[in-house]
Amino acid sequence: MPSLAPDRIRVVLARPSHPGNVGAAARAMKTMGFSDLRLVAPRRAPDAEARALAAGASDVLERARACDRIEDALAGTVLAAGFSARARDLSHPLRSLRDAAPAILAAAAEGPVALVFGNETSGLSNEEMGHCRLQVSIPANPEYGSLNLAAAVQVACYELATAGRSFALADAALGEPATSEDVEALVAHWRSAMEESGYLDPAEPGRLMERLRRLLARAGLERSEVKFLRGMLAAFEARMRS
Amino acid sequence: MPSLAPDRIRVVLARPSHPGNVGAAARAMKTMGFSDLRLVAPRRAPDAEARALAAGASDVLERARACDRIEDALAGTVLAAGFSARARDLSHPLRSLRDAAPAILAAAAEGPVALVFGNETSGLSNEEMGHCRLQVSIPANPEYGSLNLAAAVQVACYELATAGRSFALADAALGEPATSEDVEALVAHWRSAMEESGYLDPAEPGRLMERLRRLLARAGLERSEVKFLRGMLAAFEARMRS
Repeated sequence: MPSLAPDRIRVVLARPSHPGNVGAAARAMKTMGFSDLRLVAPRRAPDAEARALAAGASDVLERARACDRIEDALAGTVLAAGFSARARDLSHPLRSLRDAAPAILAAAAEGPVALVFGNETSGLSNEEMGHCRLQVSIPANPEYGSLNLAAAVQVACYELATAGRSFALADAALGEPATSEDVEALVAHWRSAMEESGYLDPAEPGRLMERLRRLLARAGLERSEVKFLRGMLAAFEARMRS
Repeated sequence: MPSLAPDRIRVVLARPSHPGNVGAAARAMKTMGFSDLRLVAPRRAPDAEARALAAGASDVLERARACDRIEDALAGTVLAAGFSARARDLSHPLRSLRDAAPAILAAAAEGPVALVFGNETSGLSNEEMGHCRLQVSIPANPEYGSLNLAAAVQVACYELATAGRSFALADAALGEPATSEDVEALVAHWRSAMEESGYLDPAEPGRLMERLRRLLARAGLERSEVKFLRGMLAAFEARMRS
């Protein structure tokens, strides 16, 4: 799992109605280490309520850039992920936030990535979603799935900061995260052991490797775990050969 | 990973100052399918602002029970998890929300579990934390880690609903989650293969199995993944014996 450079995550709010929500979104971003906020055609400019709800993140709010068109807010990004729970025709692949996080982090290793949120009432329009490459959903109560805008921004930023291991706990309970090179070497090792066992047929690999990668990405491996798994694979290999 | 019964998650707000935050917390809970809200010595009763911010979750707010002492709010629970980023003397084990989620879900399979949040300004007191068995932290920006109370409730409820696979996406992109029996059988199979390979010494197992369990719990396995991993282990075993 690549580690995350905070300046690579941009939050784009399309047509927000309430300045208070913009302020609260700025606060949510800053708690997770992000500060690049863009507003597309906000109904009202940030005001006193926005500043009050931004609390200690008024710097993020002050620096937020407003523009008229979503294209301008997405300028320079390598990936735009549109947040929407609604299934659409001509659809993008719809992925849960947790399953999308590894792809978003991988893109953020290449360049800026935009998390795009729609209007509080109407959500993202089809035209706005058309500018996004990925549709991401926060799985929620089918009987009441209406997250407040800033709450959705908070959850998205939390998921990315956590998947990217942005912040250690005070007592450093988390292990050192594996690098993408560690994970690639593990996957290659795993593949060769599965081939040797006959479980994976190189002529017909199917989706086995894709499944394995997805599972490992979801777990967010630590370096010591990669070492443990490779040790285990080496022991299997040695025994298969003896 | 056990699946999550929504009525097993209780949110306890200790000494909340602002009714608006209580309302927003009710909304956050309901979006993730939870409805059992308890207030300990709230400074003010829920009011019009609380109802406005609860939006479609006014039912959760109306049914919230207030009590004077935290003991009463925790009555009947099998685990109380206190949310606090602050390291304390005489400390509980401090775990990140993501790492704590499997333990919280496992406890929720046994009985009600409380997620306990402190006052907006001062957080949980040492006395309040003393009633919790686990201290949980939402990893955040060390320069500004101040999540709004309702935002913290939203993130905690999101993490548990996601780890517990509460909600499928509209297009059912998620696979069927593995049951705890599936996972136990996988772990037992894995152990026996590691013993057969010589990688795990039954006389000195160390923390290998604990590490394996933690990794698998974090990934949140699907049933088809358990099948794939067990197929692979069977192939390794067959080859080791041939």
